[in-house]
Amino acid sequence: MNKSRLEPLGVPGSHYEYDEQTANKSGGSAPSILDNWVLSKLLKCIDESKLRIILWDAAIPSDGIATVQILDRGALYKVARYPELHFGDLYSAGRIRVHGDLLTVLDETYRYLAENATAAKWIGRFQRLAAAPSLDDSRRNIHHHYDIGNEFYQLWLDRDAHQYTCAYYPEQAMSIEAAQQAKMHHVCRKLQLKPGDTVVEAGGGWGGFALFMAKNYGARVRSFNISKEQIAHSRAWAEREGLSNLVEFVEDDFRNISGRYDAFVSIGMLEHAGAGNYPALGALIQRVLSDNGRGLIHTIGRDRAERLNPWIDKRIFPGAYPPTLREMMDIFEPNGLSVLDVENLRLHYAKTLHAWLDRYEENLDTIRDMFDETFVRGWRLYLAGSIMAFLHGKLQLFQVVFTRSGMNNIPSSRAHIYVDGQ
Amino acid sequence: MNKSRLEPLGVPGSHYEYDEQTANKSGGSAPSILDNWVLSKLLKCIDESKLRIILWDAAIPSDGIATVQILDRGALYKVARYPELHFGDLYSAGRIRVHGDLLTVLDETYRYLAENATAAKWIGRFQRLAAAPSLDDSRRNIHHHYDIGNEFYQLWLDRDAHQYTCAYYPEQAMSIEAAQQAKMHHVCRKLQLKPGDTVVEAGGGWGGFALFMAKNYGARVRSFNISKEQIAHSRAWAEREGLSNLVEFVEDDFRNISGRYDAFVSIGMLEHAGAGNYPALGALIQRVLSDNGRGLIHTIGRDRAERLNPWIDKRIFPGAYPPTLREMMDIFEPNGLSVLDVENLRLHYAKTLHAWLDRYEENLDTIRDMFDETFVRGWRLYLAGSIMAFLHGKLQLFQVVFTRSGMNNIPSSRAHIYVDGQ
Repeated sequence: MNKSRLEPLGVPGSHYEYDEQTANKSGGSAPSILDNWVLSKLLKCIDESKLRIILWDAAIPSDGIATVQILDRGALYKVARYPELHFGDLYSAGRIRVHGDLLTVLDETYRYLAENATAAKWIGRFQRLAAAPSLDDSRRNIHHHYDIGNEFYQLWLDRDAHQYTCAYYPEQAMSIEAAQQAKMHHVCRKLQLKPGDTVVEAGGGWGGFALFMAKNYGARVRSFNISKEQIAHSRAWAEREGLSNLVEFVEDDFRNISGRYDAFVSIGMLEHAGAGNYPALGALIQRVLSDNGRGLIHTIGRDRAERLNPWIDKRIFPGAYPPTLREMMDIFEPNGLSVLDVENLRLHYAKTLHAWLDRYEENLDTIRDMFDETFVRGWRLYLAGSIMAFLHGKLQLFQVVFTRSGMNNIPSSRAHIYVDGQ
Repeated sequence: MNKSRLEPLGVPGSHYEYDEQTANKSGGSAPSILDNWVLSKLLKCIDESKLRIILWDAAIPSDGIATVQILDRGALYKVARYPELHFGDLYSAGRIRVHGDLLTVLDETYRYLAENATAAKWIGRFQRLAAAPSLDDSRRNIHHHYDIGNEFYQLWLDRDAHQYTCAYYPEQAMSIEAAQQAKMHHVCRKLQLKPGDTVVEAGGGWGGFALFMAKNYGARVRSFNISKEQIAHSRAWAEREGLSNLVEFVEDDFRNISGRYDAFVSIGMLEHAGAGNYPALGALIQRVLSDNGRGLIHTIGRDRAERLNPWIDKRIFPGAYPPTLREMMDIFEPNGLSVLDVENLRLHYAKTLHAWLDRYEENLDTIRDMFDETFVRGWRLYLAGSIMAFLHGKLQLFQVVFTRSGMNNIPSSRAHIYVDGQ
């Protein structure tokens, strides 16, 4: 385990508290009977031989068992009422501390809840209680994803292509840089890209994949993005690489894509498109795909439909939704599109996130200087929690290849994807 | 084109007629104004530069354009009322003849209907007229699939493994024998079979794949089948191969599968399971799959939901239904199963059927001796029509690999499937 992920022991200083109204209300007071009753219910959700929950008055055991400490009464009632939402905020604020490894805590919690229906039922009961109250809106306290700036991401994403999406690890020991290059080759091979092919990309991030397709496959790319900052970054990058003649970065919604293309590709955009928009997305693809065109959508998904974790939805990815394959079929079925290939790269995302988290922890001081401790802790929880969501099968990563229905210009096997044995 | 698929020219003798009540009512009478009006509507459904429809009185043109001849008034009204159903019966009975290549006729019809909404609308209009009338039940005239006997199938299936399911042609020039072996390897590699693995097979046909898994991968197989005849054949084959110690053929419905297995496999069975039974099938799989188990379902499917062609449903595969991927998700989503890999082998089925049709035509005399001319023509149409359904994207062939949700003992890429470059 990475030592840098171990929490410092001891009670945090006041700079961890962001919610002045409720923080530390319990002060030095001993837990009441009611406090201990609520704690006993929380303990039903964990395996006490693997994980411990203690309140603010308890000493931190030194037996090496990972320990979650709740530091004030307000935090106790909040996390009990709606743990999926409030754990994240309270952890970010330092009102819940983890003594031991955060990944272990999350891992054991996922495992225990999967194996124990009773514990999961308790979580469900707490959540029903939570359905009514208006949740305090502390959105301002954690910067949203797309307000944060390029420099932050470049501290911990792969250095070559700045891919903020699942990498591909055909070999376990790959660096994140190698795995992102492998991912991009994997996608290009699935799309059978060749020199002169025209490609339209929906959601281009910082431009790394568009430039990769031009540089490595000789493709002519139009990449759509609504982020002014990312477009500016992408264009400057294209200039530096001398690829501006092959790659056009368009500052526009992908729904305004016009023209026809040999390939449509979208990596990590569908999560933000909204399931209700899938039929329209499919109609757009149908319109822009040439007769022999190939398409690929790469997206986080689910084995079964479920809303996004409410804390992630509130703090990290507002409005995001990982679809099931069934839901994704709304893109293809009504629009004369035919699915050729689906690959689930779930464990590759766990590895990707692990690499990101390691690099994130290596840059803690810089990140703390850019933001604050609440941000540092919130993003750590997001990365660590996402690792565990993929490892435990709560999230999937689908790559779906498709063409127009009845298009026969397709390879006789998928062996061409594995030309280098990967 | 295979010469043997060319129809003999000229008007057929009376042995082609199976429906004595309506056949040849028109006798020698010239087509009426009404007859010619109906013909003019049929002509809206084809491209007359590629294909011709003529009535009983017309001379067969010698310009090489494929020509469909309707030989009596009853046939004309039937095929106009509900072509998707009656064309098959009337062709089988010799009351509709094809002068030229049957595959070309079907190919041009599919192409024209796909490209011309007006023509397709005419077909739709005819079909609505047909919804009410009770269709004459001539089922006795064409033997059903599973009453026909092993000898018939062995005339035209691959000689080594008797696979009556889609083969796999990673190389275009493969024989049907090689392509069926390649298919079975493909499935075993997707399942990562290794010596000692236990496998349960739902729907084992003549036993060829069960024996293949034991012989080539050292697997211990239990194969379920409700056909007494196929089970007897399979058991005798296992004895001859000396594989009875590894393969058990169970004469029972797959729904009675018990025990737990390292792999679940079903090739060409789902089409007959009924979409309403998918959740129960998934629950069964969930029950019998070991914690690290892998599953594969191989099935004919659709890009979008549609009932089976009514003639195929009536004469060839009563009750069969090719599902969409969306519909297949009823197996996995409610039952804690996770889809790892979907491959669409549509064009491989077109090639498989082509190989079957060629061999079928080579054995025409034998088949005619076993059955009669109506049967010979009906099965030709079924094979030829299926080729075109796959070529034109009306049917798909899905192989879906799955495990329990969250099972992490999975390979780091699909490259292992392509170890031999195929």
